Amino acid sequence: MARVVERGVIGVDLGGTKLLAGAVDADLGVHHRTNRLIYGLDQDGLVQMVADAVEEVRTAVGSGIEAVGFGIPCTFDSRTGMAVQAANAPLHDIAFHEVMSERLGLPVVVDNDANCAVLCEARIGAAAGCSEIVLLTLGTGIGGGLVLGGEVYRGWLGGGAEMGHMVVEMDGPPCQSQCPNYGCLETVVSGTALVRLVSVAVARRPDTPLGQALEEGRELTGPMVTELAREGDPVACEAMRVIGRRLGIGLVSLVNIFNPQVVVIGGGVSEAGELLLEPAREIVHQRALAPGRDVVRIVQAAYGSEAGMIGAALAAREKGGVARAGFPEPVA
Amino acid sequence: MARVVERGVIGVDLGGTKLLAGAVDADLGVHHRTNRLIYGLDQDGLVQMVADAVEEVRTAVGSGIEAVGFGIPCTFDSRTGMAVQAANAPLHDIAFHEVMSERLGLPVVVDNDANCAVLCEARIGAAAGCSEIVLLTLGTGIGGGLVLGGEVYRGWLGGGAEMGHMVVEMDGPPCQSQCPNYGCLETVVSGTALVRLVSVAVARRPDTPLGQALEEGRELTGPMVTELAREGDPVACEAMRVIGRRLGIGLVSLVNIFNPQVVVIGGGVSEAGELLLEPAREIVHQRALAPGRDVVRIVQAAYGSEAGMIGAALAAREKGGVARAGFPEPVA
Repeated sequence: MARVVERGVIGVDLGGTKLLAGAVDADLGVHHRTNRLIYGLDQDGLVQMVADAVEEVRTAVGSGIEAVGFGIPCTFDSRTGMAVQAANAPLHDIAFHEVMSERLGLPVVVDNDANCAVLCEARIGAAAGCSEIVLLTLGTGIGGGLVLGGEVYRGWLGGGAEMGHMVVEMDGPPCQSQCPNYGCLETVVSGTALVRLVSVAVARRPDTPLGQALEEGRELTGPMVTELAREGDPVACEAMRVIGRRLGIGLVSLVNIFNPQVVVIGGGVSEAGELLLEPAREIVHQRALAPGRDVVRIVQAAYGSEAGMIGAALAAREKGGVARAGFPEPVA
Repeated sequence: MARVVERGVIGVDLGGTKLLAGAVDADLGVHHRTNRLIYGLDQDGLVQMVADAVEEVRTAVGSGIEAVGFGIPCTFDSRTGMAVQAANAPLHDIAFHEVMSERLGLPVVVDNDANCAVLCEARIGAAAGCSEIVLLTLGTGIGGGLVLGGEVYRGWLGGGAEMGHMVVEMDGPPCQSQCPNYGCLETVVSGTALVRLVSVAVARRPDTPLGQALEEGRELTGPMVTELAREGDPVACEAMRVIGRRLGIGLVSLVNIFNPQVVVIGGGVSEAGELLLEPAREIVHQRALAPGRDVVRIVQAAYGSEAGMIGAALAAREKGGVARAGFPEPVA
């Protein structure tokens, strides 16, 4: 078969709801994107589906693929190479790197999905040139990525940067089923939280485009709310403002902790743009400590829903072939 | 005058309530400790008092002092060298380094007080040999110190590591007067919060040693509650358990964010030891994500209330004579 992509890598971004994969060439052009829904799969089914998606892309673009990078929504343990815990996907104590290397017969790099997204935004996106970066991806859940001193920061063993699971409501409700915590930022700011908020608010405003869409039988989803907010629907816009203010409260904590140059907001919900970011900035400027609050830029991800996939490809390109690359060795 | 301390430095730890200063020799022996209360002072009065305390120590130990290190409870801006904002002390937009260099005629190093404490614990204390360290000092307020990748982490401009000012109650009460935030960890876990908690609880238990001490006219303070908790007073012990559980909730966030090797708890409240730490550990092990929750050690500071002073002295010893040493240059 003809090589469509020379010296290419495949990037795979596995989220809480769907998978996005594509072949990325040396100029970072993306070829043959593919999407899969992961709803209802168990771990074996998920692994099979991920491998199928990679094979589909590989077949489509020819034999020039040299490595595969995976961003998966897990914490890791660098001592064992295991993907330990996922708040929003059926992955638990799996040697994802070994499993995929064996299935695919290609060099594989595995990292947390939001670590991939922050790598993309730091190298070529909204945070290019910055050394201190906080990234949150607002999707089904909230992913977190950190660049500190110019390097992706993963904590001691690869389990860090889970900013979606900081507590913002000490006596709050339980988080997603795979997270044992209560009152996480994820419970009040994710796409899931957005849908919950809107489902209550729209009942009082059936006369709105959103109310009418539900009346017509459309399913209430995060992307649908985001789309209607962009079109000016009053219920969707107000919900986005509430989510934006709550996001701002989470960012106050992160600005006080990291004094970052830039905060990058990605994931599906971020496509609401200023509807989400403007109220978040307002809260940060009111409530965070100086000088952090006055210097931080709060911006939308440049690579949007592709940041994780492209970051996974960048990781594969930079570190492909090195087993467990991307995870720091424990020091003590 | 005879030199009592050869090649010595003076370490100064300025907290929300008091100052501790001492001369530290090359073997890290401490000579001529002095304490001052800072209550009721304005910024000029505070600066005068600090300079007086240093001169007292310097006079007492002879002429062998080569530098002075200050830990002050402020955020910094490395672009200007200014101490910008203090949640619990009358310091605001002051060129503390310049002011003190000029007054004292000695090389001066200035850093955040909790950064000094984490330096002490990382070099010679409870976190010696560790690369990823989170420290909280529970006193009048909460100070935060971070060692990441083996280095003290201060954020982009020196305003970071303020973990006491992460939000744990989204709709919580206002923080201390100098912090514009609401529902900070400091509002529910500091010595101030401990006193507030006890003042309510003791009204229902006047028959306890704590109740009787108040009856006899003793002032209700954090150190007094900590002391009575160690002696087994039921109200003080129960309050410590509540504060410990709340501390645990804050630590869940920090374990999820940093996946640290060790969390060090210092400051006056930490002198309650296991009464405070055991409930905190329990919450972390229940609620944080794996693998972070399973590997983190949560320990009492080895240098207790002297960590800040000794850390300031260590900073002065390591970096003395270099203006604004201890603050990273901004990158972009």
